[in-house]
Amino acid sequence: MLLARVEGNLTATRKHSSFEGWRLVICQPISRDGQAEGVPQVAIDSLGAGMHQRVIISSDGSAARIAVGDSKSPARWMIVGIVDEVNPGTTALEDSVA
Amino acid sequence: MLLARVEGNLTATRKHSSFEGWRLVICQPISRDGQAEGVPQVAIDSLGAGMHQRVIISSDGSAARIAVGDSKSPARWMIVGIVDEVNPGTTALEDSVA
Amino acid sequence: MLLARVEGNLTATRKHSSFEGWRLVICQPISRDGQAEGVPQVAIDSLGAGMHQRVIISSDGSAARIAVGDSKSPARWMIVGIVDEVNPGTTALEDSVA
Amino acid sequence: MLLARVEGNLTATRKHSSFEGWRLVICQPISRDGQAEGVPQVAIDSLGAGMHQRVIISSDGSAARIAVGDSKSPARWMIVGIVDEVNPGTTALEDSVA
Amino acid sequence: MLLARVEGNLTATRKHSSFEGWRLVICQPISRDGQAEGVPQVAIDSLGAGMHQRVIISSDGSAARIAVGDSKSPARWMIVGIVDEVNPGTTALEDSVA
Repeated sequence: MLLARVEGNLTATRKHSSFEGWRLVICQPISRDGQAEGVPQVAIDSLGAGMHQRVIISSDGSAARIAVGDSKSPARWMIVGIVDEVNPGTTALEDSVA
Repeated sequence: MLLARVEGNLTATRKHSSFEGWRLVICQPISRDGQAEGVPQVAIDSLGAGMHQRVIISSDGSAARIAVGDSKSPARWMIVGIVDEVNPGTTALEDSVA
Repeated sequence: MLLARVEGNLTATRKHSSFEGWRLVICQPISRDGQAEGVPQVAIDSLGAGMHQRVIISSDGSAARIAVGDSKSPARWMIVGIVDEVNPGTTALEDSVA
Repeated sequence: MLLARVEGNLTATRKHSSFEGWRLVICQPISRDGQAEGVPQVAIDSLGAGMHQRVIISSDGSAARIAVGDSKSPARWMIVGIVDEVNPGTTALEDSVA
Repeated sequence: MLLARVEGNLTATRKHSSFEGWRLVICQPISRDGQAEGVPQVAIDSLGAGMHQRVIISSDGSAARIAVGDSKSPARWMIVGIVDEVNPGTTALEDSVA
C-alpha cells in the first residue's frame, strides 16, 4: 500500500464493463513529506477523495474485484483510506540506525 | 493500473498458444502530463486502441486469463480503458500538502 | 520482503472497514547500511514496532487478509518481523564475483 | 509482461526441484528501441529463445507452475513469446499528447 | 525471478510465527556482471547459500508458504537456486538489435 496524492480524474468511454459507474483517479505515490515517488497509479475511488488529498492506495486485486462487484474485473488499485494526518515520528522511541 | 501511451505493436510467431489471435501492444506508462514513467509493458488489447492513444492498463492476471479464454495463460497486462480526457485538477477542493 | 525503517504513523478516519483498529505505519525500504531505497510503503503493524525501528515488511495480500480477519480486505503490506541485528557478512565464505 | 532481450544462461546445480531440466535465462527488459529498462529477470524458457533475441516475458506465477508441471513450484517469470518485429507506430492514427 | 547476491543475515526475535527456524538473508539484485540493480529483498533460504554467493530469488508467495509449511505465512521471497555460472552469451546465434 502506498501513500499517494490525488492528481486528476480520468474519463474513459471505452473501458472494461466492470468499471462502469466508478470514478477513476490518478494517484501519485508520495513520501511522508509530500515528494513524488515512483510511477502514478490509476485507482478506483469509493471513498470520495478530493483533488490533491492524500490517500492510501492498495494494489490488492481480489479486494478490488469485490469492490466493483465483478469477479472477472481487471481492477487492481483502489483508494482504501483518506489520510487525516501523518505523524512524522519526532518522538522516536528507538533509532536503530546510529 | 497505469496510465500509458500505446507505442508499438509486436509480432511474435512463436508464442504461448493462449496469445493466438490477440493483438500485443507496447504501452509506455506516462504521468498526467504525458512524460514517460517507468518500464514499458506488453499488453493484450481487446478495445482496439490506436497508436499513441492514452490507455489504462492493468496487471491483473486472473482477469487477463479470463479475457483470452484460457485459465492456463501467462497473460498479465491488458488494456482496460481508452482515455478520453485527463482532468488535471485545477479546481482542487482541498490541498492537504501546504 | 523488504528491510525497512518505520518513519511515521498515519491517521485516516475514512477508510476501508477492515482497517478499523489497525495501526498504519509508513515504512521506508532501506539498504543493509540504512540508505533509503525505493518507494515508501504503508503497512499494518501487529508487532508494535517503534518509530525509526528497522523491520521486515511483506506484500503478501493473502496473509494480510488473514491478519486483519477479513477475507475481503484490500490490506497488502504488513510488518512481519522487527530486526534485532543485520550481519554485514564480513566473514564471507565465498565471493563468486571476483 | 515485458519486452526483453536474452542476455545469458544460468547454471545452478543446487536449486528447487521443479527447475530440473528447465533452461534458465537472464532477460533484460528493454524499450521499443532496445535500451535497457529496469532490473534483469531470470525466466524459464520453453520456446528455445536464442541469445540476444528479443522476447516477451511474463511474471504470471500460476502459468509458470503449470508450465513446469509442479503446483508447488516457485517459478514466476517465463518467456511467452519470441518477437519477430516491433512496429514503431509511424502511422499513428491519433496522437492525444500534443 | 531475480539474479541476486547474498549480502547479509537478519536476526529478528519478534516476528511472524511462520518464520521461526528459518534463515532470513538480504539479497541484492544484480545484473549479469554483478552490478547492484534495484531494491534489496529479504528472502528465506532453504538451500544454505553462502555469504556473497550469487543466487536466484523468487517472489512467489504460494511456493514460499508451502516451503515454510504454513498456509497463512506472509513469506514471499525465497532463494530458489544457487548459481554456479553465468554464461555471458558470447556465442550469440542471433542478434536482433542491430
